[in-house]
Amino acid sequence: MSGFATSDSATKHTQGHGITAEDIQNANLHATEDVAQYALILGDDSLMLAQRLGWWISRAPEMEEDIALGNIALDLVGHARFFYSYAGTAWDKTEDDLAYFRDEEEFRSARLMEQENGDFGQTIARQLLVSYYHYGLYTALQQSEDQTLAAIAAKAVKEVEYHVDHASQWILRLGLGTEESKRRISSGLYYMWPYLDELFEDLEVHQRLAEQNIAPLPSSLKEEFDTRVAHILEMAELDIPQVHPARSAQRTGKYSEHRGYILAEMQSLARQHPGATW
Amino acid sequence: MSGFATSDSATKHTQGHGITAEDIQNANLHATEDVAQYALILGDDSLMLAQRLGWWISRAPEMEEDIALGNIALDLVGHARFFYSYAGTAWDKTEDDLAYFRDEEEFRSARLMEQENGDFGQTIARQLLVSYYHYGLYTALQQSEDQTLAAIAAKAVKEVEYHVDHASQWILRLGLGTEESKRRISSGLYYMWPYLDELFEDLEVHQRLAEQNIAPLPSSLKEEFDTRVAHILEMAELDIPQVHPARSAQRTGKYSEHRGYILAEMQSLARQHPGATW
Repeated sequence: MSGFATSDSATKHTQGHGITAEDIQNANLHATEDVAQYALILGDDSLMLAQRLGWWISRAPEMEEDIALGNIALDLVGHARFFYSYAGTAWDKTEDDLAYFRDEEEFRSARLMEQENGDFGQTIARQLLVSYYHYGLYTALQQSEDQTLAAIAAKAVKEVEYHVDHASQWILRLGLGTEESKRRISSGLYYMWPYLDELFEDLEVHQRLAEQNIAPLPSSLKEEFDTRVAHILEMAELDIPQVHPARSAQRTGKYSEHRGYILAEMQSLARQHPGATW
Repeated sequence: MSGFATSDSATKHTQGHGITAEDIQNANLHATEDVAQYALILGDDSLMLAQRLGWWISRAPEMEEDIALGNIALDLVGHARFFYSYAGTAWDKTEDDLAYFRDEEEFRSARLMEQENGDFGQTIARQLLVSYYHYGLYTALQQSEDQTLAAIAAKAVKEVEYHVDHASQWILRLGLGTEESKRRISSGLYYMWPYLDELFEDLEVHQRLAEQNIAPLPSSLKEEFDTRVAHILEMAELDIPQVHPARSAQRTGKYSEHRGYILAEMQSLARQHPGATW
């Protein structure tokens, strides 16, 4: 009858080893205001992208890809839970408060994360840029003087390694595939590229946290990112798009064409039934 | 640079130990026509339900629940891949052929799997019935004389144990929660109950396979299912709905109000770009 046991928790999810969102919630931590704002930026990035990627489950061009993109989406929800749980310790908020009960202009996600899935090539172009960015970011953040951020980064980077592999392999497959696949991935890169610079902008909160060795300056991650992206694009025989950057929102919640739509989908059930307690 | 390695496969997914869909594809197996038809029934059930559940990613009432339902959906896609890969050996078809290139009336899924998500209570009611059914089915199928079906069942039942726990815990939480939660889960059970009998109908293919000890008769699973469901509902202080069964499609692909819609979403990309080769 092992399949029919019941326990106190209504849900459980084994995330492997390392820190869990529940650990953060139960550890009596208190993030500083700056750390909380920073965690919110990272959590919002992950959650917005997860919402976009979740759409592909059962809609991808291959069953194997359904599972791959679905797993990446769930990893990203997991990362958002970490960051929200930690940010919430500064304001006495839960992860669900932060995900479901903030309004559009209170989100801090970069515009890249919210861009439309488009065709599969466009989604993979976004995956390439985001996963390479996340890889560099979390690798550096593992060295944070803030032990909680360091532990979250150490856990997240292991999963992001897989996201990097996944995106890289698709870039090669599409870039070196047919004329049509090359045209589509090139077009996807061209579409996503203008939103790239925003990821590497240093805001005041970054400056203050960098001085305390709590977080890397975003600009400090750019050179290695550029080298790695240039390398994979060269291997895939794809050009680096020459395009003007889109207007940056500087993490203010402005200039988002898509966020309202994403949040309407995400938040409606939780807002109808706060706490899911009915 | 471990996160930046590339390999021949464009996607990879670690499913833990046990058989993989790729094992089945590469093993030079040849399912008989009956076994293939049976595997198709099981695969279609899993895929249809997975498509329904995938909708919840980023829309559940709690972030934890996003991940739980998302994981269950991905498990079910994985099970469908096993069954399609094996069924395909009888007809020289791939899993993707069977998922994306059959028409509505060629699917063999039970009507229960395709019912609408409704509210969270309705989804959990469907999860209770399906996961208890799957648990009994795969437990018995592990004893199959067909070694491939036995290996798939052994792998699937481990994941279904988690689905059973998840559904059971939610049934208790909703049934013993507030008046409103009790009303909603009761209403969900009432909505799903008429589609239950179809799961336990013995068709000719089942009769032939049961004689060879390849598959259990669906009717043979009913008594234990009823006992277990009655037990959890009693614990949750919920009544067994007294409703007439819906018309059974007897796995002929008939009488589905929803399948066309589900398939339109699932199949459009693969059909636009067969083989995702562009």
